[in-house]
Order: sequence, then C-alpha cells, then structure tokens
Amino acid sequence: MNRKALQKLSYGVYIVTTADSSTSAGCVANSAMQITSSPAQVAISINHDNATHDAIVQNQKFAISVLATDTEPALIGSFGYRSSRDVDKFAGIACEMHDGIPVLTNAMAWMTCRVVQTMDCGTHTIFLGEVLDADINKESAIPMTYLYYHSVIKGKSPKNAPTYVPDET
Amino acid sequence: MNRKALQKLSYGVYIVTTADSSTSAGCVANSAMQITSSPAQVAISINHDNATHDAIVQNQKFAISVLATDTEPALIGSFGYRSSRDVDKFAGIACEMHDGIPVLTNAMAWMTCRVVQTMDCGTHTIFLGEVLDADINKESAIPMTYLYYHSVIKGKSPKNAPTYVPDET
Repeated sequence: MNRKALQKLSYGVYIVTTADSSTSAGCVANSAMQITSSPAQVAISINHDNATHDAIVQNQKFAISVLATDTEPALIGSFGYRSSRDVDKFAGIACEMHDGIPVLTNAMAWMTCRVVQTMDCGTHTIFLGEVLDADINKESAIPMTYLYYHSVIKGKSPKNAPTYVPDET
Repeated sequence: MNRKALQKLSYGVYIVTTADSSTSAGCVANSAMQITSSPAQVAISINHDNATHDAIVQNQKFAISVLATDTEPALIGSFGYRSSRDVDKFAGIACEMHDGIPVLTNAMAWMTCRVVQTMDCGTHTIFLGEVLDADINKESAIPMTYLYYHSVIKGKSPKNAPTYVPDET
C-alpha cells in the first residue's frame, strides 16, 4: 500500500469550536463534509486526544469556522499544536457567539451544529451534526484548501506562531 | 440560515466504484475523507437512491478513484447523471482491477476499502472503510477540487449529491 495516495483526497481548513456556559474549546480540523441536504447535516472527524473532542461529547454541539486563503497564519497557530486544556486559545481572537458557540469573526463562513449521531472509529470520532445556523462573512473569499495550507501557509509561519518549526526555513 | 455557507466546505472529486463477481457499479462523489491514520480508514457518503449505495451494502467494499484537474469531463459524465441500473457506466472506460473492484486507469490515485462501519444519515449512508490497498498513478497531477469542478468544468451537483441545492438549474 502506498499511503501517500490518501494524501490526494482534498479538504478545507477549519477551526472547530464548542462551548458550554463556562468554557470554550477549539482545534484546527481538515475533516469536515456535508452528508445530507435535507435536513442539512455535516460530519466532522476529531481525534479522541483533543480537548475539543471531549468538549463536543459534553456539549453535543459544535461550530465550523471556514478559513479563507487570506487567513493570518497566526490565527491557525492559535488553535493548532497546543491543547485547550493548557491555554485559552480564544485569548485575543475575535469571536461572535452563535447558538452559544464562539465562531471566528475572521472566518469566511461558518455553521453551528447539534450532534445527532456519533461513530467511534478508534482514534477518532465522527460527529454527525444537524446544521442549526450558517452564514457567509466574506462572499468573495476563497476557501483555504488543505493542499494550499501545506504548500503555501506552512512555509510562512511567523517565528512567534506555535506552528513555526525551525527547520522550515 | 444561509445554506450557501455550506458550499464553502472543500472537497475533491472522485469516482466511487464497487463490484461483485458479476456486476459493477460506480458514481461521482465529492464526499470522502480520511478518518484515521492507524489503521488507515476513509469515510464516504452515498445517497440511498444510488445503485452504487446498494451495491456497496451488498459487496461490503468500495474503491475511490481520485480525479485530477486534467480529467476528461466526459469521464465524469460517464459516471454522473445516470444510474448503474440503466447503463453499463464502465463501457469504454479503462479500468484495472484491485481487490476485485474496478479502479479507473486514468485516476491520479486510488484506494480500495472494506466496509467496517456504516451510519444511516437519512437520505445518505456514511460508509467507513478500512483501506486495503492504495497507490498513486500520476505523481505530479493536481487533485481536482469540487470548486474547480464547478468553476472550471462547470459541473452541477446531481440531485443525489449531499451538496445538492434545489434552486440550482
């Protein structure tokens, strides 16, 4: 098996968030796809080890912030490579609350979902969410693909961003 | 809810195929994503009305052929907008057999999977497949995104797609 073939599947880049009345959690995700049109349902895949995973299980709702190609790499860095258990990832990040969940103000589009089914897949869980609300913030923006993120953004991580890796330069 | 926000999720364009000893079925799909790395598992979403859906349920295996930007639109046309119940979609299509499933020779990459879990989501089923085999046919090809398909190839979502929007003409 040539596992690199799996890297030819295409994805976007998203910040998945969730919250209850006291705490918020969020992480970078690429695995999100619409499953049904009527009702509108979306599936995401989240690693069991992520704090966001347990928070979604607890809260039974999540939001997807869709990132555009012009997203500041530092914003992605805020939500990646560290845990919501250790830091407040939302510190300094502009958010708007929708259905009780923080959605990134700089997202080009967003949707809020309530969990209707889950599938335990071993290391990850697929959460199937019925879309509660959704909107577009930036009509003309171009969605960031995972390929774009890897080929363009990753090499431009600023030195103070958590995504910065010394050997990238 | 602005349903157009859901169209900002990113996808690739794939031909999902399956077969038993006597018949083959296949359809165009955009909803495929890797779920776990160890073991390698991939999820697809297929409409209940598709002949390919029932054939996957029957055969408990499927293949994903990853299409590149240079894919002939006619090839996509061969697998879309008509049913494997009515026509032999594989007539005139170059295929190679992997794990008993026809994989498109012109795919830039492919993977074969055995179904390990399913989730009934109403109009669609999520099939979770453990990857049996995978390879890259064209190393330098660029995966076709669903956005590219819509904006360059001018494809429209067929009625059975998860991303179908009723007011699309």
